Amino acid sequence: MLGPGKADLLAGVRDTGSIAAAGRQMGMSYKRAWSLVEEMNAAFAAPLVQSSRGGAGGGKASLTEAGVRVLALYFRLLEKAETAVAPEVAELEALLKAAESDMSAGK
Amino acid sequence: MLGPGKADLLAGVRDTGSIAAAGRQMGMSYKRAWSLVEEMNAAFAAPLVQSSRGGAGGGKASLTEAGVRVLALYFRLLEKAETAVAPEVAELEALLKAAESDMSAGK
Repeated sequence: MLGPGKADLLAGVRDTGSIAAAGRQMGMSYKRAWSLVEEMNAAFAAPLVQSSRGGAGGGKASLTEAGVRVLALYFRLLEKAETAVAPEVAELEALLKAAESDMSAGK
Repeated sequence: MLGPGKADLLAGVRDTGSIAAAGRQMGMSYKRAWSLVEEMNAAFAAPLVQSSRGGAGGGKASLTEAGVRVLALYFRLLEKAETAVAPEVAELEALLKAAESDMSAGK
């Protein structure tokens, strides 16, 4: 119900104030971005994104309180996972061919 | 260089003794399974899978010592990540609509 794509989209909505713009900066179609937002809003007890479908200028959108909270939880989750597995990542990297040791750079 | 697909494929090779069979049980073509194994063997300093291309009966394959170690590291990494993020997963689940609370079951 929440993965990297949706989390990035939420962050994009927060930063751009627009679902279309958030999707665009991820190379996502307007339709796809809206569909993901609708999925998230349907999956959570409270909607994560509030929006007004706009006219000529396009609609405005922002995160709800629940959206802010979910996004913060997601980033905290990522950070804790990354910290927890750092030793294993380092061990795996040490087993790679020298030139291929770019796993932790996987961003 | 290692993700769920490749790790599952390694586990499949370990369990079936065959790259083709390991791929098959993941719904993967023979060609795709071989290509992933070749990628892994090329990425790591020591190959993870040793194999003999077989005749009529198909080749046999097994994990090398490096393969066993990498797979163990990967599973330890998953386990530590899952443990580390359990509180955030629980918090996120609590924000979902009741019927959708299946995030931790995502297996």
